[in-house]
Amino acid sequence: MTTSTTDSTAAERQSTAALIEGIATAARRAALTLATLPTDRKNAFLESLAIAIEARGEMLIAENRNDLEAGAAAGLSNALLDRLAITPERISGMAQGLREVAALPDPVGEIIEKNERPNGLRIEKVRVPIGVIGIIYESRPNVTVDCAALCFKSGNASILRGGKESFHSNRALAALITDTLQKHDLDTAAVQLVPTTDRSALNTLLSLDEHIDCIIPRGGEGLIRFVAENSRIPVIKHYKGVCCVYVDDEADAALAEKIVVNAKVQRPSVCNAAENWFVHADRAHDLLPAIGRALTDQGVELRADKRAEAFLRKANVPVKPATEEDYHEEYLDLILAVKVVDSIDDAVDAVNRYGSKHSDAIVTCNEANARKFMAEVDSATVYWNASTRFTDGYEFGLGAEIGISTDKIHARGPMGLRELTTYKFQIYGSGQIK
Amino acid sequence: MTTSTTDSTAAERQSTAALIEGIATAARRAALTLATLPTDRKNAFLESLAIAIEARGEMLIAENRNDLEAGAAAGLSNALLDRLAITPERISGMAQGLREVAALPDPVGEIIEKNERPNGLRIEKVRVPIGVIGIIYESRPNVTVDCAALCFKSGNASILRGGKESFHSNRALAALITDTLQKHDLDTAAVQLVPTTDRSALNTLLSLDEHIDCIIPRGGEGLIRFVAENSRIPVIKHYKGVCCVYVDDEADAALAEKIVVNAKVQRPSVCNAAENWFVHADRAHDLLPAIGRALTDQGVELRADKRAEAFLRKANVPVKPATEEDYHEEYLDLILAVKVVDSIDDAVDAVNRYGSKHSDAIVTCNEANARKFMAEVDSATVYWNASTRFTDGYEFGLGAEIGISTDKIHARGPMGLRELTTYKFQIYGSGQIK
Repeated sequence: MTTSTTDSTAAERQSTAALIEGIATAARRAALTLATLPTDRKNAFLESLAIAIEARGEMLIAENRNDLEAGAAAGLSNALLDRLAITPERISGMAQGLREVAALPDPVGEIIEKNERPNGLRIEKVRVPIGVIGIIYESRPNVTVDCAALCFKSGNASILRGGKESFHSNRALAALITDTLQKHDLDTAAVQLVPTTDRSALNTLLSLDEHIDCIIPRGGEGLIRFVAENSRIPVIKHYKGVCCVYVDDEADAALAEKIVVNAKVQRPSVCNAAENWFVHADRAHDLLPAIGRALTDQGVELRADKRAEAFLRKANVPVKPATEEDYHEEYLDLILAVKVVDSIDDAVDAVNRYGSKHSDAIVTCNEANARKFMAEVDSATVYWNASTRFTDGYEFGLGAEIGISTDKIHARGPMGLRELTTYKFQIYGSGQIK
Repeated sequence: MTTSTTDSTAAERQSTAALIEGIATAARRAALTLATLPTDRKNAFLESLAIAIEARGEMLIAENRNDLEAGAAAGLSNALLDRLAITPERISGMAQGLREVAALPDPVGEIIEKNERPNGLRIEKVRVPIGVIGIIYESRPNVTVDCAALCFKSGNASILRGGKESFHSNRALAALITDTLQKHDLDTAAVQLVPTTDRSALNTLLSLDEHIDCIIPRGGEGLIRFVAENSRIPVIKHYKGVCCVYVDDEADAALAEKIVVNAKVQRPSVCNAAENWFVHADRAHDLLPAIGRALTDQGVELRADKRAEAFLRKANVPVKPATEEDYHEEYLDLILAVKVVDSIDDAVDAVNRYGSKHSDAIVTCNEANARKFMAEVDSATVYWNASTRFTDGYEFGLGAEIGISTDKIHARGPMGLRELTTYKFQIYGSGQIK
């Protein structure tokens, strides 16, 4: 029995590997034609897909019900079930998202730089698609449509690997995508969903560096670490958002309160919400009690170092002692770690030590301090007198967002259509030899 | 005995790992100060290093002699010993290279894009160093100085891991770099050489993704594959240069001959030399014999498919039959694989199948065919009517070259100073909250 089970598992794994290799090979082939597909044909496909999703809303909701029932039976939390649900509003949202992507300018073909060399060679650096992009994501089914649309518009073939919780929903959406590709005489391998929840499929996918050019994981830190540690393909990612707000000794009190409270409270469950609050020692006496009170009034639990704790206690603001780990923690909740720092240099050090290089802000009226902070904090996005909550492709004017990167290679910060492209050098000669 | 040997090896490995972690941690610290070092201080360091290398030439040649003697004893080929040698001319070359890098514009701080959002936020996308860059290279000691200079000028800390063949030479050069950093009151961790040839040092280095942002391997395909397969850090690389020249049915005969011969013969040992020659079937009768003869007259061995072989034999041009593997081979020698193709589409397919996505050329007078080839060939650099031999940072006007990438993430083609940078978003607010 043991032997036969092992054989069967190995055979299953082998058949999954063959399946995934077939998908990746087909995606590479599709990518070559997508790379030169005219903009109007790409936009027509996106518009048709929007119409198909609207028209087949009832089917989508029915398929989604299978996932919701399985999820409830498996004991998923209400929050997770909510993320998983497809509703009429979310169907409209997906369709609208597709139309917005269609309306965005096509990044492909843009001449980024050009120059003519002394020998007469004309060199053009031209924006082109990356090729084949793998998206690994968790429960929200609308990610299937969002990512397919952004990859497609930027001329990339995509391989979508959703979570098992949304398997039926993703499969139904993928069927609509395939139908629409066919209707438009396009290679159906331009957008492919991995049709199995077998974990070995993911391992195979991450090994196919000949066929897949880039992996973008979206989800919790555990998923992203698994992908980063097991991928032979370049991964663009952020593990977590431990964002810091530093309130300088020359901060305006009202501005500081507004920004710290907004960065923490407005939507604590997202990656650009603040998790650390650093205060200059010279303003600990007035700003800690005032802003601390404003935060606890909105339900925030403060976890403070010894010096901050003393000021807060003296003012009767509820506070708990912080451990060193608290400053590394992504709470995604109404909890804030607080620390007193002695100088702008110490503030920069604290942000670089504890933050996750995502989004950090300084509140100050002192321009020199602001410029120092913005230059020396080694993060994708640094703010002077604004909330960290603006780190987002739409807020930055990209018109869309496929993810946020805290990597330094290729793309950093919010990623839109352009960040799904690379370039090639096209060189025009008249017989130049070396 | 076995136990004690194992213990000792494990202990050695542990001590190497601690050494490398110390180097990487120090590099991260140095990177934070390098990121804001003014241009004139960077240039002053580079000029001092040039002077130091010129002044200590005799010492460098003496240290290099140790490597040459060990290399000769180990049976290195004359070609390898030549690559390894430091001569008075190469010392001048290193010094001149440093002065050229000093003269290049500093990419750091450039505002790549800016825009003001409707809410008044001013968003600036600013060019910044990547951080810590690991360079893994083989025998040529001048790479130590070249890479140190390019990383330094672009504000990056570098960790240099040279080959064991050039250990003494690299150590002597690194000592001059350290001295010069000290004289300029700079963190000596800004440029560090890995001071051991222990292979486990490389494995440790490739695992430190918290401290090292990017790895650039330079050397043979074996080294590069080892690095790519064992690295947790993003790697920018090209494995090999299998460059293709396609001669279209509408090619000018004289132009085609000039380009094919130059791409193959002018310096066959480099990555941008041609390894494959594809000829349109309609011109096989005249171009294969004429250009084939010109090539064999210059000592080139032709390996041809059956159709090409027939035309060549008929004209008494020496030729051998090609295997399928020949078209994937990077000969780096006076050997050329030849194939007849039936159309521009087949030519594009052949280049995408056999080439290594490095540099490929079409020779034609037909603009539509040229544009199709340049759009559909999925390579870093595509040429119309010019030799592939121009793929090079200097030829492209970058002023320098740290390497050539066939990856699609971050940088593609020749990489200069700019390709050693990333960007950050600096955002100026006046109290904006979400």
